[in-house]
Amino acid sequence: MSKCLIAPSILSANFARLGEEVDNVLKAGADWVHFDVMDNHYVPNLTIGPLVCEALRKHGVTAPIDVHLMVKPVDRIVPDFVKAGASLISFHPEASEHVHRTIQLIKAQGCKAGLVFNPATPLTHLEHVLDELDLVLIMSVNPGFGGQSFIPSALDKLRAVRRMIDASGRDIRLEIDGGVKADNIAQIAAAGADTFVAGSAIFNAPDYADVIRRMRAAVATATP
Amino acid sequence: MSKCLIAPSILSANFARLGEEVDNVLKAGADWVHFDVMDNHYVPNLTIGPLVCEALRKHGVTAPIDVHLMVKPVDRIVPDFVKAGASLISFHPEASEHVHRTIQLIKAQGCKAGLVFNPATPLTHLEHVLDELDLVLIMSVNPGFGGQSFIPSALDKLRAVRRMIDASGRDIRLEIDGGVKADNIAQIAAAGADTFVAGSAIFNAPDYADVIRRMRAAVATATP
Amino acid sequence: MSKCLIAPSILSANFARLGEEVDNVLKAGADWVHFDVMDNHYVPNLTIGPLVCEALRKHGVTAPIDVHLMVKPVDRIVPDFVKAGASLISFHPEASEHVHRTIQLIKAQGCKAGLVFNPATPLTHLEHVLDELDLVLIMSVNPGFGGQSFIPSALDKLRAVRRMIDASGRDIRLEIDGGVKADNIAQIAAAGADTFVAGSAIFNAPDYADVIRRMRAAVATATP
Amino acid sequence: MSKCLIAPSILSANFARLGEEVDNVLKAGADWVHFDVMDNHYVPNLTIGPLVCEALRKHGVTAPIDVHLMVKPVDRIVPDFVKAGASLISFHPEASEHVHRTIQLIKAQGCKAGLVFNPATPLTHLEHVLDELDLVLIMSVNPGFGGQSFIPSALDKLRAVRRMIDASGRDIRLEIDGGVKADNIAQIAAAGADTFVAGSAIFNAPDYADVIRRMRAAVATATP
Amino acid sequence: MSKCLIAPSILSANFARLGEEVDNVLKAGADWVHFDVMDNHYVPNLTIGPLVCEALRKHGVTAPIDVHLMVKPVDRIVPDFVKAGASLISFHPEASEHVHRTIQLIKAQGCKAGLVFNPATPLTHLEHVLDELDLVLIMSVNPGFGGQSFIPSALDKLRAVRRMIDASGRDIRLEIDGGVKADNIAQIAAAGADTFVAGSAIFNAPDYADVIRRMRAAVATATP
Amino acid sequence: MSKCLIAPSILSANFARLGEEVDNVLKAGADWVHFDVMDNHYVPNLTIGPLVCEALRKHGVTAPIDVHLMVKPVDRIVPDFVKAGASLISFHPEASEHVHRTIQLIKAQGCKAGLVFNPATPLTHLEHVLDELDLVLIMSVNPGFGGQSFIPSALDKLRAVRRMIDASGRDIRLEIDGGVKADNIAQIAAAGADTFVAGSAIFNAPDYADVIRRMRAAVATATP
Repeated sequence: MSKCLIAPSILSANFARLGEEVDNVLKAGADWVHFDVMDNHYVPNLTIGPLVCEALRKHGVTAPIDVHLMVKPVDRIVPDFVKAGASLISFHPEASEHVHRTIQLIKAQGCKAGLVFNPATPLTHLEHVLDELDLVLIMSVNPGFGGQSFIPSALDKLRAVRRMIDASGRDIRLEIDGGVKADNIAQIAAAGADTFVAGSAIFNAPDYADVIRRMRAAVATATP
Repeated sequence: MSKCLIAPSILSANFARLGEEVDNVLKAGADWVHFDVMDNHYVPNLTIGPLVCEALRKHGVTAPIDVHLMVKPVDRIVPDFVKAGASLISFHPEASEHVHRTIQLIKAQGCKAGLVFNPATPLTHLEHVLDELDLVLIMSVNPGFGGQSFIPSALDKLRAVRRMIDASGRDIRLEIDGGVKADNIAQIAAAGADTFVAGSAIFNAPDYADVIRRMRAAVATATP
Repeated sequence: MSKCLIAPSILSANFARLGEEVDNVLKAGADWVHFDVMDNHYVPNLTIGPLVCEALRKHGVTAPIDVHLMVKPVDRIVPDFVKAGASLISFHPEASEHVHRTIQLIKAQGCKAGLVFNPATPLTHLEHVLDELDLVLIMSVNPGFGGQSFIPSALDKLRAVRRMIDASGRDIRLEIDGGVKADNIAQIAAAGADTFVAGSAIFNAPDYADVIRRMRAAVATATP
Repeated sequence: MSKCLIAPSILSANFARLGEEVDNVLKAGADWVHFDVMDNHYVPNLTIGPLVCEALRKHGVTAPIDVHLMVKPVDRIVPDFVKAGASLISFHPEASEHVHRTIQLIKAQGCKAGLVFNPATPLTHLEHVLDELDLVLIMSVNPGFGGQSFIPSALDKLRAVRRMIDASGRDIRLEIDGGVKADNIAQIAAAGADTFVAGSAIFNAPDYADVIRRMRAAVATATP
Repeated sequence: MSKCLIAPSILSANFARLGEEVDNVLKAGADWVHFDVMDNHYVPNLTIGPLVCEALRKHGVTAPIDVHLMVKPVDRIVPDFVKAGASLISFHPEASEHVHRTIQLIKAQGCKAGLVFNPATPLTHLEHVLDELDLVLIMSVNPGFGGQSFIPSALDKLRAVRRMIDASGRDIRLEIDGGVKADNIAQIAAAGADTFVAGSAIFNAPDYADVIRRMRAAVATATP
Repeated sequence: MSKCLIAPSILSANFARLGEEVDNVLKAGADWVHFDVMDNHYVPNLTIGPLVCEALRKHGVTAPIDVHLMVKPVDRIVPDFVKAGASLISFHPEASEHVHRTIQLIKAQGCKAGLVFNPATPLTHLEHVLDELDLVLIMSVNPGFGGQSFIPSALDKLRAVRRMIDASGRDIRLEIDGGVKADNIAQIAAAGADTFVAGSAIFNAPDYADVIRRMRAAVATATP
């Protein structure tokens, strides 16, 4: 099993002092910065764009920035995020007419590429492009809508993707996003996830380092 | 002539410490916080949404927040911005099928309403709704595209709208956005504008208070 | 002034026994059947389509059926309504890329054609096609949204269109829709309308004939 | 096998006296009222919306109203139909960006939820949400287009879904719509359907009760 | 009055030997090559794109190529046509969210820019950008639909635009397209047009030079 | 194995003398004329439409014209291509809301019908309609984007579709498009393709007949 990565979603951080928040969460042991982009079309919400990503890089953030595009269409904004300092860009297969082409576009600019699956999206979209990907992101809530808890059927989906990744023999991250907390992360890791997005579970906690430590410990118990 | 208002566009601020930036520019004498929302559909860029507006309110900002929606369609996101603390919401007539209805929607929730005109947009869109508005915003650059300077034909447009507002006898702000600087603000004010958006002209200056002071002085020379 | 026409909007009728409702309102003195079509895209509501229009004709309705299309795009559904028995089809200029062409399409099939103006829509859309039209419909509420009352600025718009029609010397109906009642119809007629849509004002009244009679009387007092 | 349900599609009823038609077909033994909603976008036709559903409830219809949404997008109109009295709302997976979320939206308001499959739509869309559903609807004609007969490949699809439902151990209706008649309903039932939509086969018959009786008898012969 | 220009529309040429056709019509005295691009979205037809334009340049055509974009949106395809050798690119104001910006985009790449008016489109779209344009194109038929004849109200529109151009004091071409023939070109020229698109009137004639000569002669009689 | 067919894509031909080019390539031994239609919406390019197809028929081309629609939506343009002389029309499942219906539409007009799969598109879209098709086209590059080479994973896809076709026992062509050359066509044929689109590999060669001969020879070595 690859190293467990914790990727706090900055949507739950305080945007009035975002640089400091990101510094703190990284100092507390986070691995990646998870960056959720919503365009008010693919999902009914609008969040943050390339200029916020660029501000983090200018502020001195050197950790990987993991951009999750909840936008449709996808291609036009990809170069903007590459220029703004994204490390990995993932998108939804329903949001691009040409999924293989969008993956190539991301990678041709030197970024890693991921594909994201909504709770109902079939894994058949993964079949012909798995070998091109650096990451598969399984949504365990519906993106763009607030107040949801972890959808249990995501565990089956994780197990199915874990089998596909292992069969491919490639180094592909399996990320989970939605309702991840210290008390359910063990069973999520057991189902095959190795990269964990958490928002309020981390940023609403009094001590970021403590939560992250507990998350890592739980993952360790669940994986050999 | 109504009091001159200076509305710094926070798109030019440092997003890593936005709360502090906004505090500073308000302490330096700015009147309003100008908040540019782009959705990657109405314009080819994506900026910031309601959660950033809400973060400013939570941070303690009490100045009016003047939200310019460069989004299409408009209606769904209006209540989100009202809840997030917007004081005034303006939108483009091309972006709503039902312009009169969108104005009512904004006002019914306790916000002020504005209509924005792109450089080529005819003023006929203003004729039947002027009396419903709190603000008219004239774009002197094309929204959503970088690196542009003030389009001179905006001066004629300001003069035409100034005449319409004066004829209405109502208290309606006439705002200008795009390429406004200390050295051209006098002629813009002379053409009828009373509310001035400025981005890099303020946030890229070493001393915010000094620029704002020079802007106000220039406006004062231009208006009786 | 042409004869005043009363056009009850069947959206306010009882859809469980629509044939009987329409028979009754026509017997009570109504002139036209006003038929509001909404597609859940141009307006956020979906009402009734060609099959309901056809059912009225099969039921024996011979009065003119005046179809107001709140749909976008317009052209595909026009032949369906012609075949279903529409007498006049009106549409919104914002809803068709080729307004002149859509008018020709309606007329080529033997129907009369109208153009509809939302409260904020400028009359410039009327300038180059007035001579092709059989009817201009001024909306005095925003179409597709419930619970609104008559927007007073519609009176100015009626006066402006009345001048354009009179100047053209052509036989073009000037229709008004939204918040029309027995107690405001006189001033609406005085502003130039000659065709009056009314929904709940008629269908919610205990005696259809009485309301229609009072409407006609009020119009008569207002027009020479 | 669950009880066989007959759901007459009111698109084939007489819309001039719809209340009476629905009363008659229910008295004749029908179980559900099937309500086909088309928006002129997802399919090239526009039929009937919430106000007709509400009129049936006000008329006194207490049978389940089974609403099939041939609209895109889906979510905005869902609450309108719930308020109008729908019992079950089904939609097409291609018509919603967030299928799992739309199902939750329907159920959160107290309605049952169904998913509809066009003749070419793969069943992979069912895999991750079957457990959330109350009904699966297999189209045996293309929705929104007239004059079609039963597509035989729908039988294979029924058999495949029947296996999935039985494997789930849940109480999920398997409905069929398109070209169902008394003389082919036995083989359709044998393939696994337990809920049958029929339009002209019922409403064009001289005796509704007789057709429905013959349908039930045919189904009984086909199922153990 | 500026020199009269004849611009044959190659949509009426023989596409099996387009190079030869264009050579012949230019040898016969035509001034420009008119190139009609339709995308099956802005108009219900699809014609020819940049690769055909480029083929003409490679074939040796040096005359101005006057590209009329009946496409929506406009901006993405502009650089393709510039690279393919277009001399002038015109577009419809309804087809671009940012008309002023699209004009700048065309001109920044070294092309001339035009704006096109459908029969019903108001001239208010011209007011704020006339000074930026090299050409105004008035449609005297509805673009994208076949079998139409010259719409007489285009003459009034030509007169109105002629007055605007003359008042501007700028060198702006006034082009007409739709139903132009040798026997109506005189009155069209008298209304102010100086650039004439003709398709079948030229390419269906046995002698291209003869038609063009007769067209020029007619124009000469009509203009001082 | 069915006869190997070579289908040169005329997008690589010289459009200034297209009739001659097509005559030459057919004389050189090509079997079909492959006709790529792009609409600047489904793919970011616009190529050629029905009028070019019709010109080839009028020029005397009698070989099958194999039209690949890279357009969205599909249905409106189908009758235009049938009338223009197309022999086979293929389209992308993502581009039609009603894939089964679009296949029927093509066939009802006397054309053969094909379904096209982008590199990432799952084959589940084929399951319920394979029996209705005359051709399956596997894209081995992303449609509408230039300068790409053969994507190796297309070989696996060909093998999977070959198995499905053989199992169906029907006469269905398996076509490949993208990066096909004389030096890789053998392994493509070995994977199951029997119909080969080639553009620049043929039209950029000095001797069309020589390339086509070498392609056929390579295919012959690869298939029993």
